Amino acid sequence: MTLKCEELLAFALRIAEQAATMMQQARETKAFSADYKADHELVTSTDLAIDRYLCGEISAAYPSHCILSEESSPNLLLGEAPTWVIDPIDGTVNYAHQHRHVAVSIALYVDGQRFLGVVHAPFLEECYWAVKGQGAYLNGARLKLTDTVSLRNALVATGFPYQKNALEPLIKRVSNVLHQCQDIRRNGSAALDLCWLAAGRLQAYYESVKPWDMAAGALIACEAGAVLGRYDDVTSDWPLEINGDALLVCVPSLYEPMQQVLALD
Amino acid sequence: MTLKCEELLAFALRIAEQAATMMQQARETKAFSADYKADHELVTSTDLAIDRYLCGEISAAYPSHCILSEESSPNLLLGEAPTWVIDPIDGTVNYAHQHRHVAVSIALYVDGQRFLGVVHAPFLEECYWAVKGQGAYLNGARLKLTDTVSLRNALVATGFPYQKNALEPLIKRVSNVLHQCQDIRRNGSAALDLCWLAAGRLQAYYESVKPWDMAAGALIACEAGAVLGRYDDVTSDWPLEINGDALLVCVPSLYEPMQQVLALD
Repeated sequence: MTLKCEELLAFALRIAEQAATMMQQARETKAFSADYKADHELVTSTDLAIDRYLCGEISAAYPSHCILSEESSPNLLLGEAPTWVIDPIDGTVNYAHQHRHVAVSIALYVDGQRFLGVVHAPFLEECYWAVKGQGAYLNGARLKLTDTVSLRNALVATGFPYQKNALEPLIKRVSNVLHQCQDIRRNGSAALDLCWLAAGRLQAYYESVKPWDMAAGALIACEAGAVLGRYDDVTSDWPLEINGDALLVCVPSLYEPMQQVLALD
Repeated sequence: MTLKCEELLAFALRIAEQAATMMQQARETKAFSADYKADHELVTSTDLAIDRYLCGEISAAYPSHCILSEESSPNLLLGEAPTWVIDPIDGTVNYAHQHRHVAVSIALYVDGQRFLGVVHAPFLEECYWAVKGQGAYLNGARLKLTDTVSLRNALVATGFPYQKNALEPLIKRVSNVLHQCQDIRRNGSAALDLCWLAAGRLQAYYESVKPWDMAAGALIACEAGAVLGRYDDVTSDWPLEINGDALLVCVPSLYEPMQQVLALD
């Protein structure tokens, strides 16, 4: 199979833009309802509508491709076919609370590797994208990390799980970061934390998230010059390339220091 | 002395808008330098330039008034004369990192009480203001809190001090909030946390801050219907009306539950 990179990127950008428009319209008209999943994770009718739209477009354009979606097919593992990994709204709590850190995240994996990623944040008017080996972009401008900051002056983003068990290690890590870095930001969207890292607005990001939260943003951050690794063991069954367990993404010079900061002993 | 309320508000809005323009221009042209104060608090040349501008305008228009400013007169206590309490840039770390949660905060105290407040956030295109007894506004639209959320679904904002000593009680409170509320947001601007509370985007805010961080935002939140109290003892010497120690501001129904959440025993 020959994959046409430019065509795929144009397609991903187009459906991301339409998803972003759907988010904006639903918020402006307050035409969405909110509900909680079994684990107290919030979902709105807009998440579901955008999920149906994205899956429909992908299936029509690329019927042989697979889709891994937070809302409709969250258990599909990466197979041999190209696989789209999508999160219709990353930052649903923000979306429901009228915050701006909200994005649609669309990634394509080919041969089990990140191939392209688009993160479109309509309320920030920011569209990020990256293609493997071709760099990362924000609204058309190339992103290139500068890596000159010390740990003490590093701004570090993280997130917290919906589930309220097993918070203790997480609290300990927050304490370590607050003691040793400039400050923490908790913006409420993993995809955008990764993109803001790519844009040089954050120096490190760590969290355990799901594949759809990190698939596009991880490529965007890495293509901007960030390094991606783990601060703890991977415990879920997802293939490593889409596994969001214990994710540490940061400017290269802070990777070792941040490993120390996030160590629990 | 007769204070002309509309004139004062128009004046505060005008100088806030000019300060906002200065922030934007300095960021666009990257025409600012950053430095650290003795306690590792960041300050930029833009903070200082805006401070000089605001103090100059206030002194020219109201020569009999006092000014309490983070950057130039941080130790003046509230006297008998009307006192302007200003923070040229609330969210300086955000400003230097190209984040959007950045605002100029301008408050006027009369007879030791909050009289008016303006918080202008140019990168969000949001200008908040309030006059005592006359309500709170965002870009001209009246703000009125709805108070229907449970503790479990409440989004809670807080901040962390620049100083790295005495972080333990703070970590314990973060842990309590994460266990009992929906999530935490750490956006990096106390003034805007208070305004976002007024706008219904957050349900509670707690932090120990300085007078200039909270003077305008506290009035805006209260005029929108929030309650303001303390989650711990006040230890600094500032008069209570401008004292930011252990500030808890939230929708009324969450005030008692949040007191419990933030208790350390």
